Amino acid sequence: MEKGITAEEVKKNRIQVSNSKKSLFFYVNLSKRYLQQYNEVELSGLGMAISTVVSIAEILKNNGFAVEKKIRTLTVDMRDDPGARPLPKAKIEILLGKSANFDELMAAEEDQKETGEGDEPN
Amino acid sequence: MEKGITAEEVKKNRIQVSNSKKSLFFYVNLSKRYLQQYNEVELSGLGMAISTVVSIAEILKNNGFAVEKKIRTLTVDMRDDPGARPLPKAKIEILLGKSANFDELMAAEEDQKETGEGDEPN
Amino acid sequence: MEKGITAEEVKKNRIQVSNSKKSLFFYVNLSKRYLQQYNEVELSGLGMAISTVVSIAEILKNNGFAVEKKIRTLTVDMRDDPGARPLPKAKIEILLGKSANFDELMAAEEDQKETGEGDEPN
Amino acid sequence: MEKGITAEEVKKNRIQVSNSKKSLFFYVNLSKRYLQQYNEVELSGLGMAISTVVSIAEILKNNGFAVEKKIRTLTVDMRDDPGARPLPKAKIEILLGKSANFDELMAAEEDQKETGEGDEPN
Repeated sequence: MEKGITAEEVKKNRIQVSNSKKSLFFYVNLSKRYLQQYNEVELSGLGMAISTVVSIAEILKNNGFAVEKKIRTLTVDMRDDPGARPLPKAKIEILLGKSANFDELMAAEEDQKETGEGDEPN
Repeated sequence: MEKGITAEEVKKNRIQVSNSKKSLFFYVNLSKRYLQQYNEVELSGLGMAISTVVSIAEILKNNGFAVEKKIRTLTVDMRDDPGARPLPKAKIEILLGKSANFDELMAAEEDQKETGEGDEPN
Repeated sequence: MEKGITAEEVKKNRIQVSNSKKSLFFYVNLSKRYLQQYNEVELSGLGMAISTVVSIAEILKNNGFAVEKKIRTLTVDMRDDPGARPLPKAKIEILLGKSANFDELMAAEEDQKETGEGDEPN
Repeated sequence: MEKGITAEEVKKNRIQVSNSKKSLFFYVNLSKRYLQQYNEVELSGLGMAISTVVSIAEILKNNGFAVEKKIRTLTVDMRDDPGARPLPKAKIEILLGKSANFDELMAAEEDQKETGEGDEPN
């Protein structure tokens, strides 16, 4: 984390991958936006979503947009409801930072959208 | 579906299994409540959540609470955002009905909770 | 199942989807071969592989190669080792049959491979 | 990796989590045996098996048997068949080492098995 960023601000760049209705590309694109705004993005996911988190991070790294800064696995106690018994769930957290040529790649992508057929989701 | 139930009412007994933060037991318990209220419950899930939907239905059947009334798989076009390009996703829908001894099993479960140590989530 | 097919023969057209190293397309292509040879193919999978089984069946149906003949979910007792304690696992079985234009689609696909750049897996 | 261990020996302590027919406990128990024999165990998994690998590692850490020594995600090109086109797949590798009280915990577990009802898988 960079100095001078308050806890409040830091939390804004976290993406909890938890919804099977969204596509991988939704999370990839959201991560790019967060990298652009905050320089870093933290992806996290529980249970089966762990695989999805790793896939998102790998796509961002393989396409040159991000570098891995930190990765850890942990176990969290989740409650289904406020009054319910806590159950342990495996979790992954991956912190990504902008790659050296992030801005260049984003600009190229922006160009392509403007001149393209407009079939790319934003 | 039973006669005399309007479309509006029927929709209330649908559970979309889409959140990796909830446990299997959350969905099992919610299904029991819906069976009690509406006699039937429809479970559905997309992509990786398909496995979870099947597990929930199997738990309910194996424990004697429900019988399978209908099962089907289909493909739906999902949009990540209102303006985004639709992407196909595999889906499962399982319609469950109350088993013959549903009320008896629910009463037994209720008894156990009252006399028990209260460590069961509601 | 067609009449006159012995138990021995029937078993040959079963695909157990259980290996995370194989791609969806491996199973899609294997299913097409089995449909060609046996007219029917039975896909099955346990636990997390249930989602994959449904995706394979949906791809085959959406592309016009197969029609669904039967679908069921069940719970099987699995032993990790011959001496180990059995553990219940959710399972799905989907029986697919050739669609009306299966042969036409397969022939078209074969043509494309021969005249194409040869970048399709067999 | 400890000094004095040859490449040949090191490979023996790798577990590829790739089979949806095996339970979490199969892999947890196999990991314990490998930790006992080789002091370290490397768990790896592709695609959906990534979540399973993390769950296995978390169980071993939470129960005091192992400590994490290394974790990384990568992308590997997988071929379904020797002649097939390579497809990228996300992968995780987690290297675990014996915890300080590994031997004590294993001895306690062994004692329990001998005096118990023998219903634990080995």
